[in-house]
Amino acid sequence: TTQEDPHWATPLSSFQGFEMIKILNDHPKNKSVFVHGKFRGHEEEAVVILEKTPFSEETLPFALSGETKLKVGLKNDIYGNYHGTPPAQVNGIKVSVVYPATPKHLVKYSQQQTYLVQETGDDYRNITLPFLQAEAFRIQWVYNILEHKQESERIVFEDPDKETGFILLPDMKWDLKQVNDLYLIAIVHKHGIKSLRDLTAEHLPLLHNILKKGQEAIQEKFSIPPCKLRIYLHYQPSYYHLHVHFTHLNFDAPGTGVERAHLLSDVIEHLEIMPDYYSKKTLAFCLRENDQLLAEFRKAGRVPQKSE
Amino acid sequence: TTQEDPHWATPLSSFQGFEMIKILNDHPKNKSVFVHGKFRGHEEEAVVILEKTPFSEETLPFALSGETKLKVGLKNDIYGNYHGTPPAQVNGIKVSVVYPATPKHLVKYSQQQTYLVQETGDDYRNITLPFLQAEAFRIQWVYNILEHKQESERIVFEDPDKETGFILLPDMKWDLKQVNDLYLIAIVHKHGIKSLRDLTAEHLPLLHNILKKGQEAIQEKFSIPPCKLRIYLHYQPSYYHLHVHFTHLNFDAPGTGVERAHLLSDVIEHLEIMPDYYSKKTLAFCLRENDQLLAEFRKAGRVPQKSE
Repeated sequence: TTQEDPHWATPLSSFQGFEMIKILNDHPKNKSVFVHGKFRGHEEEAVVILEKTPFSEETLPFALSGETKLKVGLKNDIYGNYHGTPPAQVNGIKVSVVYPATPKHLVKYSQQQTYLVQETGDDYRNITLPFLQAEAFRIQWVYNILEHKQESERIVFEDPDKETGFILLPDMKWDLKQVNDLYLIAIVHKHGIKSLRDLTAEHLPLLHNILKKGQEAIQEKFSIPPCKLRIYLHYQPSYYHLHVHFTHLNFDAPGTGVERAHLLSDVIEHLEIMPDYYSKKTLAFCLRENDQLLAEFRKAGRVPQKSE
Repeated sequence: TTQEDPHWATPLSSFQGFEMIKILNDHPKNKSVFVHGKFRGHEEEAVVILEKTPFSEETLPFALSGETKLKVGLKNDIYGNYHGTPPAQVNGIKVSVVYPATPKHLVKYSQQQTYLVQETGDDYRNITLPFLQAEAFRIQWVYNILEHKQESERIVFEDPDKETGFILLPDMKWDLKQVNDLYLIAIVHKHGIKSLRDLTAEHLPLLHNILKKGQEAIQEKFSIPPCKLRIYLHYQPSYYHLHVHFTHLNFDAPGTGVERAHLLSDVIEHLEIMPDYYSKKTLAFCLRENDQLLAEFRKAGRVPQKSE
């Protein structure tokens, strides 16, 4: 880093000096935790996400070796439970740091009450769209990827066409160590398609192209056939530049629930049946207590007031 | 252990001598893995289940200390991803051992291959429907509930109307101890509606009635408002008599994924837009290696032959 770079531009080499403020959220089932904190001597706040890594073919031989000490908890006939202490190779964790984190990041990563909202086409135009336009969410990082300024070495496949092209790359949540939790994202080159809501029949060539070439690239690079893939869009998405998720069918990835995921094959068929389907259809999604958009739906009387 | 005890009665103190035969199943999201193996010098087979432990208030200070070394993977603007190597206190794993394991244990802990099938309207009529008719799945237990011969004490709400009525009762998976994992099922009184595929605009009064009265009954009995409920049908369902699932929105219940769940509100809107939507629309769902219906789709060339 040069003299002009802010201190937080330097990658961390450990959590030296980290001071925990609060656990924002905890997913014991996934073995992950979201923490709000600071680094001693600095004003900026940070969100740190820790997640244990899955076992892999690489690490299993270490986990199942004489180096893993076992302390028996319970032994009954053929069944035994133990606490194991495996060697270092098994114990890596995945760490994501947002630093400096804005109040919005703190909200995003906190656990909150959730509500199912039924957004009609009119709700979108009267409530959601004006809100998105006023917020002008930061998507510079998406353009950095599309312009090969960032993460270009991670690109799995690219179709450079300006209208129907896209970049396919691993999602941040996938470490590429095993295909069981394969997770890739196709980001479209075309700017200005915010979400599902903007899609019309004119985007069918783009959507067909993503489906076909995305499947082919994944078959070729990772030997996973189309019938083992779940290919879908999120509504609401986490950023408003059109992108498509590819996950392994066996992987119960976050955001694959019926209240957020829309299969790309369904999206295509709906647009074929009814070119303006996504501007008219009522779409259900979850909003959390601190989402600004929930406040907008409340103001409009479309979600009940806060209850306890 | 006494002289008569078999060698496997002694609790393990490490995995010394363990020889892995096969990974039976892998749950990367939960960071657990099921392994089939043996111990050198012994004939008996073993199933070993390894699961990483969640972060806890006890272990977090160690994970977020200077002792956790970080290796940067990717740094883009305010976002950084790292591989972390935390100290020993953070790295315990849960170990379960079945030893000796029988062939039944191996089947129980094995993963079946799953495939995403895209069933067109014609596939339904040519493959699925003839299969369902030949199988004549037993649904006497459903009729027993509808006729109050079984489980009548569990009924939460009933509308006895023969055309639009239904019985609402807790799903077997819900113990009613807390509402966080609320799970109820509405079973329609009308016979002969096998699934989503049979629904047309003529069923709209039935579907509206289930939505409205189901929501009201749950609000009244369990104080859960409609905006906290996920209300959906399964396709394929686990039995072919129309029923609707009601689960708490915060409860990540099995079968809520986009590849199986269809929101009742979407089903209603689709039938309002297009009365024959569900007889024409391609519907995606998963089938497992041992599902008879998969063999039928293979025979028809609609799913690739078995791969390894």
